[in-house]
Order: sequence, then structure tokens, then C-alpha cells
Amino acid sequence: MSRFICDKLKNLEAYVPGEQPKDTINIKLNTNESPFPPSKAVIDSINEASTLLQLYPDPECSVLKSKAAKLFGVSPENIFCGNGSDEVLNFAFLAFCDENKGMSFPSISYGFYPVFGDLYGIDYKKIPLCDDFSINAADYHGLSTNIVIANPNAPTGLCLSAYEVRSILDTNKDNLVIIDEAYVDFGAETCIPLIKEYDNLLVVHTFSKSHSLAGARLGFGIACPEIIEDLEKIKYSTNPYNINRSTMAAGIAAIDDNDYYMNNCKTVIKAREYTTAELRKLGFCVIESKANFVFARHQTISGEEIYTMLRQNGILVRHFSSEIIKDFNRISIGSPDQMEVLINTLKKLLLNQGG
Amino acid sequence: MSRFICDKLKNLEAYVPGEQPKDTINIKLNTNESPFPPSKAVIDSINEASTLLQLYPDPECSVLKSKAAKLFGVSPENIFCGNGSDEVLNFAFLAFCDENKGMSFPSISYGFYPVFGDLYGIDYKKIPLCDDFSINAADYHGLSTNIVIANPNAPTGLCLSAYEVRSILDTNKDNLVIIDEAYVDFGAETCIPLIKEYDNLLVVHTFSKSHSLAGARLGFGIACPEIIEDLEKIKYSTNPYNINRSTMAAGIAAIDDNDYYMNNCKTVIKAREYTTAELRKLGFCVIESKANFVFARHQTISGEEIYTMLRQNGILVRHFSSEIIKDFNRISIGSPDQMEVLINTLKKLLLNQGG
Repeated sequence: MSRFICDKLKNLEAYVPGEQPKDTINIKLNTNESPFPPSKAVIDSINEASTLLQLYPDPECSVLKSKAAKLFGVSPENIFCGNGSDEVLNFAFLAFCDENKGMSFPSISYGFYPVFGDLYGIDYKKIPLCDDFSINAADYHGLSTNIVIANPNAPTGLCLSAYEVRSILDTNKDNLVIIDEAYVDFGAETCIPLIKEYDNLLVVHTFSKSHSLAGARLGFGIACPEIIEDLEKIKYSTNPYNINRSTMAAGIAAIDDNDYYMNNCKTVIKAREYTTAELRKLGFCVIESKANFVFARHQTISGEEIYTMLRQNGILVRHFSSEIIKDFNRISIGSPDQMEVLINTLKKLLLNQGG
Repeated sequence: MSRFICDKLKNLEAYVPGEQPKDTINIKLNTNESPFPPSKAVIDSINEASTLLQLYPDPECSVLKSKAAKLFGVSPENIFCGNGSDEVLNFAFLAFCDENKGMSFPSISYGFYPVFGDLYGIDYKKIPLCDDFSINAADYHGLSTNIVIANPNAPTGLCLSAYEVRSILDTNKDNLVIIDEAYVDFGAETCIPLIKEYDNLLVVHTFSKSHSLAGARLGFGIACPEIIEDLEKIKYSTNPYNINRSTMAAGIAAIDDNDYYMNNCKTVIKAREYTTAELRKLGFCVIESKANFVFARHQTISGEEIYTMLRQNGILVRHFSSEIIKDFNRISIGSPDQMEVLINTLKKLLLNQGG
């Protein structure tokens, strides 16, 4: 820390992203990446865009917005393009929260929400999950703060229905409700159609998971035009060229190739069902997930032990040390082959443990 | 604007980037881009990186930092990698300014500085330029605020020497001094070596201009390790994967190919000298620039008229409407051929005007 940092940021605790291992990891199941590469058209488009990298990208993202609007069934003026969904969330905290308006979110959810809150000195309230780790929509009725809910939630994979989200929107007419749908393409119900009815709804999407672009950073905000205008204002006040040429080309081509990605999602869903069933056979309690990961706790072996055993066998999963979830591991769903290796490795390890 | 935006941002005026024309422009000299494409090695590296875009990039930017450290003659812990130099500046305003510590900068300079100030509610002071548009270093001695100076300054192209910067650093020991060297590779003196002596210096670089990567977004902050740590903290609290895989690959390859880019800079410098001399012959007053643009005012024809005449002839330059510089146009230095077309076009136009 330098002697120049502002007082208010001296104790800021930054987000800790999932480890990018530099040692021998054969199967990386710790950051919810897609096991499938981008489609050929995406790779070709990036390659084509490379020869013009000396020129700034289109700050208005016109083509990408039109394509995304069609994909999401809305108009281009309902679309904000972000440098990853993290940027959309970051801008939303900055634009819509202040000393008079805080943010509420589930006590166990995406670890970045409290970091944005701390960074901007925003008062936030963590609303406890139910005992089964589900979110009780009624806990979010009639609040005095803005709200952000990951749906499906991370790291649990549990969802609210659009009906439940509607109940939150209806009872928070003067609060912005952000539904973070980073994982929605793996079997949950999207709330995008609700933006036509609710001017207090911002839906956040990412191409990092379902569209194999974690390495390109592309996210979307979908909302009424006025909310989008506000996000654009923040963008033009921080990072007007937030979508670079390579990512712009990748995003446009990925939307054109949406069928390829939706098929990949189906493969992931099947692999998730296989993994859930097999883990249960091995004595794990597995929460019913609608995301591209499962959250699993073994009946007798600690979360940390499972994490360590797997790591020693070249498989990396994500373990969170926070008290309430420390018995669990979050396991990203890789390819069917990778999940078979995971299950076979666990079988062997648990047998050795007499588990 | 939505009804949810914070009061303090209601009147925020965002940065207005140079126009990205959608009509017929043959020669684009309005945003200081390089006229040269990225080197073959850069294009090849991006192409290679495309096949792994389903994976997050290395948030630590380890390889890129090592390479950049060698290029700049410092250590990796002196390097911050930013999503364009705008991000480095943005993070610096956020990390080091607050209600107790404002920012000072030249009254005519990069238009983004006041936007960052307004966004974060930071008090800023615009220090007038001298009558010849130069910066008087003594005006920055012993201030009570942080300081940011573009060196060379934009849109004038004029420089402070490292000796003058040193005088500012010496008299502002408790203020952070940011030297924004976006244009330094076109003939000015870099202050990077001074970071070894001054813990209150942050030098900002970009690969957008000299390294033909405006479309990739890559900038650097170079400072003592403590300042870098603070910038990293902000990065991990907003955008941990700020350098995506394509840009990371491009940056690494561009550093390996530095000779290609430095040769391009030499070509730009020659074209700038040609342009300056020819414009003067045509009755322009041209400020002596050390950047990849010139700032020029015609003796009899208004800045707006020159802008409009050129635009009608397929050449786009940048005109600023602010009172004090409205007689000028900022003309980016393109390829030698492009500059010849510019001069010949102006000759023809001025002849028609009887100018």
C-alpha cells in the first residue's frame, strides 16, 4: 500500500478470483469455464479483426448491440455491452447506489457484490439464505435498497422462478432490482421478457460461461432504455472503448453461432446430471443445480480434504473457506470425459479412505 | 436518464471520444491512431490465443509484466497492466483522490481528466497554459493536490523536459504526480527512469498509438511497487481479468517486435516534420509537436471551416469547439502518403478560397 491511497480504501478487501494454476492440473473445474472452445466462426472473426487493431473499436457497439437484441428478443436500446458482466455490475453499483441508497443481496452469493459495495462506500445488507441454501423471495419484498440476486445463485446453483422475481419487482417499485443471469443458459428461466413491464429491472448476462468466451470478457446489461443510458454514461466516463475489436468480433460471431453454444449447454446439463447422480452414490450431498457447476458436501469427509485430495490428483475444484459453506466444494461441469475422470478419481480416493 | 441514477451523477458530462465515421471518409486523422497495422507476430499470437478463449486470462498478467518490465527498464513489480491507459488513469483518480485530496491538470489537456474528477466527485483545478500553449512547470510547484500532466500534452504536442518534471516531483513530495506519456514514443523524453528516485511518480503509457493496438486496449502504469499494489487492489475490486487473452497475446508479441514499432514511430516523426513544414507554407500556424499529431490554426480561415472543408473532401481531423482552441484543428499523423494527400487537398482548397 502506498502512502497516497485514500483513507476510505485502506481496508478494502479485493475480490479473490479462482486460482489460475501454474502447476500440473489436468482438469480445471474451479472457475466455471466452458470445456468447449469457441466455434470456428468466432476464431475466424477474431483473426480477421486482428489486422485492423491499430484502429479504435466502435464505442457504440452498434452491430453487436443489434445482434444481441435479436438474441435476447429486445431492442438495441435495451442492450448495454460490458467488458464482462463484472463491468455491468460495477457500473450499476456506481450509477445507482450512494449514501442514500444501499444494496441488498443474498448472504451467500457472488463474492464480488460486497467488494463493489466496499469500493464505493455503499451500505449493503446481506440477507441470509434459508437452511436449504435457497433464496426466499419474500425476504426481498418491500426493501428500501436496491437488490442484486444471482439467478441461478452461485455457488449453490439454486434458482428463483420468474414468478418469484416478479413478486420482488412488484414490491420494490422504487428500487433497482438486478438479476444476474450469468448461469441462466444451463437450465434456468430468464427474466429478460420482464424488462418490457418493469422499469426497475436490470438483467445481467455473460458470454463467459455458455458462450466459451471467459478469455474475451463480454457481458450484457438488459433493461429499459433509461437504465441503459445511465450505464452508457458511466462507460463514457471511464472506458468508452470497453469492448475491444477482438471481443466485438467474437461476440458478433458467437451470436450468429448460437446453436453451437446452446448444444454445448445441453451437453453440460447432461454431464451435470451424471455428476450429481454419481456424487450422490459416493455419499455426497449435492444441491440441485441449474448452473454449470454443482455444490457438493461429503457426508463424512471435510470440504478441504476433498479439495486437497482432488488437487493432489490433478483435479482443481473451488473451495471457499467461509464458515457456513466450508464443508462444500463447487465443482464446475467440464466435458463428459472430464466428469467421468472426476468420478472415477473420487471413487478410488474414497475407497482408499474407506469412505 | 433513469429515475434510479444517483443525484451526484445526474449532471455528469461524459467524455466524448473522437468520431468513428460511418460515412465516406478516405483518410481518418481524428483519433491519433497508428497508420500501420500490428506486426505479423502480433496477429499470429492473437490467432493462436483464440482457440483457448473459453478460459479466463491470467489475472496477474505475469508474462506480459515481465516483458514490459524489460522494455521499460524496470522490474515486474513496477508494472501495472491496464485495459487501455484510460483504465490506469481511472483507477488512479479512484485510488488516490478523495474529498481531502484533489487533482490539478493543465486547462487544455486530455479531455478525460475532468470527467474522472466529476465521476468521483473530486475537486479539480485547471491550471492555465501559457499564451504559447506551453506548460509552465513552476505553476505546478508546491501544490496541495495530486497532479496529472500529459507529456507531450494533447492536443498541443508540447513537452516538459524530465528536468522540469523533476522540479514538480521535488516540490510535491506528498502529492502523487501522474505523467501521462501516451505520446512519448514520438520524440519526447520519458520520465520512467525517475520512478527509481521518486515514490510520488506514476508514469502512464499506452500501446494504442506507437504500438498499433488502439483496438486492443492495452496501457501501463509504471511506478514504485506500493503505487502498483494500490492500482492492483482497485483492479481486483472491479475487473480482475482486465487484460483479455487476445490483448495479452498481442501485448507480449508487440514487445518482442518492438523494433518494428519504433521504426513506424520514426516514419510518423518524419511525416510530422513534412506536414508541419508544408502546413506552414500554406499559412498555418503549427505548434511544434512531439506527438503523432499536429495542432494547427490557419491565419485567415476558421478552424471549423478547415474541418468542414476537409471532411467534405473525405479527410477527417479533430476540431474542438472550446473557445480558446476553436481556431485550431488537431491532425493525426498518418502514413506519408496520407499526409501528402492532406497537403495537396489543402493546397487545392485554399487556392479556391484565394487563401
